[in-house]
Amino acid sequence: MVNRRIAEILRNGQPDESLVVQGWVRTKRELKGFAFIEVNDGSSLANLQAVINQDLPDYEAIIKQINTGASVEVAGVLVASQGKGQRIELQAETVKVYGEADPETYPLQKKRHSFEFLRTIGHLRSRTNSFGAVFRVRNACSAAIHQFFQERGFLWVHTPIITASDCEGAGELFSVTSLNLKNVPRTENQEIDYSQDFFAKPTYLTVSGQLEAEVMAMAFSNVYTFGPTFRAENSNTSRHLAEFWMVEPEMAFCDLEGDMDLAEAFLKYIFNFVLEKCPEDMEFFNQRIDDTVLATAENIVNNQFERLTYTDAIKLLEKADFKFEYPVSWGLDLQSEHERYLAEQLFKKPVIVTDYPAQIKAFYMRLNDDEKTVRAMDILAPKIGEIIGGSQREERLDVLERRVVAQGMKPEDLWWYLDLRRYGTVPHAGFGLGFERLVQFMTGMGNIRDVIPFPRTPQNAEF
Amino acid sequence: MVNRRIAEILRNGQPDESLVVQGWVRTKRELKGFAFIEVNDGSSLANLQAVINQDLPDYEAIIKQINTGASVEVAGVLVASQGKGQRIELQAETVKVYGEADPETYPLQKKRHSFEFLRTIGHLRSRTNSFGAVFRVRNACSAAIHQFFQERGFLWVHTPIITASDCEGAGELFSVTSLNLKNVPRTENQEIDYSQDFFAKPTYLTVSGQLEAEVMAMAFSNVYTFGPTFRAENSNTSRHLAEFWMVEPEMAFCDLEGDMDLAEAFLKYIFNFVLEKCPEDMEFFNQRIDDTVLATAENIVNNQFERLTYTDAIKLLEKADFKFEYPVSWGLDLQSEHERYLAEQLFKKPVIVTDYPAQIKAFYMRLNDDEKTVRAMDILAPKIGEIIGGSQREERLDVLERRVVAQGMKPEDLWWYLDLRRYGTVPHAGFGLGFERLVQFMTGMGNIRDVIPFPRTPQNAEF
Repeated sequence: MVNRRIAEILRNGQPDESLVVQGWVRTKRELKGFAFIEVNDGSSLANLQAVINQDLPDYEAIIKQINTGASVEVAGVLVASQGKGQRIELQAETVKVYGEADPETYPLQKKRHSFEFLRTIGHLRSRTNSFGAVFRVRNACSAAIHQFFQERGFLWVHTPIITASDCEGAGELFSVTSLNLKNVPRTENQEIDYSQDFFAKPTYLTVSGQLEAEVMAMAFSNVYTFGPTFRAENSNTSRHLAEFWMVEPEMAFCDLEGDMDLAEAFLKYIFNFVLEKCPEDMEFFNQRIDDTVLATAENIVNNQFERLTYTDAIKLLEKADFKFEYPVSWGLDLQSEHERYLAEQLFKKPVIVTDYPAQIKAFYMRLNDDEKTVRAMDILAPKIGEIIGGSQREERLDVLERRVVAQGMKPEDLWWYLDLRRYGTVPHAGFGLGFERLVQFMTGMGNIRDVIPFPRTPQNAEF
Repeated sequence: MVNRRIAEILRNGQPDESLVVQGWVRTKRELKGFAFIEVNDGSSLANLQAVINQDLPDYEAIIKQINTGASVEVAGVLVASQGKGQRIELQAETVKVYGEADPETYPLQKKRHSFEFLRTIGHLRSRTNSFGAVFRVRNACSAAIHQFFQERGFLWVHTPIITASDCEGAGELFSVTSLNLKNVPRTENQEIDYSQDFFAKPTYLTVSGQLEAEVMAMAFSNVYTFGPTFRAENSNTSRHLAEFWMVEPEMAFCDLEGDMDLAEAFLKYIFNFVLEKCPEDMEFFNQRIDDTVLATAENIVNNQFERLTYTDAIKLLEKADFKFEYPVSWGLDLQSEHERYLAEQLFKKPVIVTDYPAQIKAFYMRLNDDEKTVRAMDILAPKIGEIIGGSQREERLDVLERRVVAQGMKPEDLWWYLDLRRYGTVPHAGFGLGFERLVQFMTGMGNIRDVIPFPRTPQNAEF
């Protein structure tokens, strides 16, 4: 007999086929003379129903063992289902129980559990419908990202996790050290003796792979990173993680127009990919979690994104017949309420805002001729807010050096980054996508801790 | 005119096609009345040759600017090449210089540089032939890994980088902290006051995602990790990195046979993929770096791997007509010389050694009925040595608890891992592949620091 995955059986299985399935029991219903069990192997939201007749040897003993959470191997023949809800079911010929799950202690009984509770059993929560769907969609997003870039000849580059540079200055950094924290060695003048640390200098967990991705783009033209990044920011919110994954493409010979074109194509590709690969999971989110997720996904796939400058956006916001909590004024950053007004109320589709004031953006963004704005872009989506941030990079050595100094950094600390402008510099651009934000928006999950298998947040590094 | 990548032009370009290329100048040759430049954009090892005639406006000025390392955009028409070494070349109509590279200071002049020297300019070394080829092959290996698993319905799972568990005990750990190292807070009895640390407990960089991958396999059946892992081991060798990427598949309802089948198919798939996608780069390694890399790759692709137990391997080694440096005796681990003897001298193909003594392997490996050996397997390849290590996992709660205690660990620290055996336990198995080792073996590069963009090693966290 052939061993098959349940997703494939539900899609292709035909009556009279003999097969074996292996999975975990979701529910059991005992009736007169037989029992139904729903078996799930994680390949799909839907279970395969197996029918166990009482003429099976050891029927009573087996039925007693197969409670919710038990692991089983069922061999049998597919038959057309008489009941509602499924096209086919498995008529069991043998049932083997690998492991039981004591109903007195197994935490995942049939009733609904809160996501808060499920976070405390992060080692079991993936066995529920919601988390099963989340992590299948998360995988589909990952697969879409790699496929998108590989099809276009981008190289996946692994930028360092441990870094000695704190130049991006994006919030607080985690220190990485091999020193004994109980007894940090000191130099004669009571400084930390970093010569005894593993890297012989202070090191941190990276906040972004962008600067190193620029290095690689200057050799391979088109590259992307997809890896973990970190913030030691004490934000206990539903939108912050201390450890999260980022995607950062970087393109040589590319300006902001090309950057926006790629970002728009990229988002459409991912949403489209997931709608095609995970229709059942997406339907589940739309029904159970947030009834706008399908409309939001389709809005992104089907609309040409609106593009306007920050200056024009400010004008529109100033004219808006809407009472904002935060002030609107040229030079101030856009708040979430402003971004949502633009995308949801005004344009009703994704909006790309460009050319932000230089003083609210990073030093590496290309200065416009007005000397006041930079070639930055943020993509704002309905229901989502900012989902992508990017820029054309400053490729002119003199301008970049000036901006580095103006922001209080030392050019010598960035010698290698400046070298990219010194030798064969080219116009280039890139953007960053917070991967968990993407999955959160895709699925409608309210808390970002519920879209990563093992979330790291203040006071929490369980499992 | 169409903007095209050089790899594609060299493959498909036809005379009379008009196009634009953008890239960096590798060499320039000035002749009477015209000049040749070799342009590379990172898409391939080979350059596109462009011919610049002196009737081009500003010919003298342009030629002076285009030195090795300069960035250019050349528009023109493809013509059949008169010269040796290339099928087609580009007859330039316009040449735009984006950025110069002063030959007085640009470190990558035409002469050969040692890999040691190139490590000191890690931000530029990808612009050389060798590192271009390495990172294209590295990307192809990555793409092969994702494609292999995605085709088979495995989910890519992101296991945590920051972890509070030090259970794997694989060498030294890096600490991760947000405490001020200059002034580590103390409790009343002079212990470190971790309540003030970000996670309110000691945390480390992960050494393996396996235990968390097992969690995910118990819900999705088949999963894999592909992410960074860390060792604070003070090993200054050509085979050790402090930060490296690992691939760790984990399969529910799988025993050691299934694990070996998957690992063998996996290795063959990757080598085959790279031979097909990067023939030119692989040929380069074979000619310039190590003239056995193609033969080794083909040996892996074309042979059925030999499988034998550790006990049989010891017998063969004891009988071997070969003087080993290290002793051979049942209970001792195999040394590199023993592994290479088996794969290179005896079987002349990859060998999978199984069922190692329990005391030299990790606590989570499944104990055999002899109570002396465990269901572990290592794959040893000619020229390479150990490339994959895996095992069937201990799925029996009582046996696992016994082994945890025997290795001096506390079962309560592993409560969630033990829960996987308490609720719906199943036979399961997996393996680990050190990604940089793979790339090193694939390319023949002698030092592992030369197959990762920005290596982290003792006293070194540059760029």
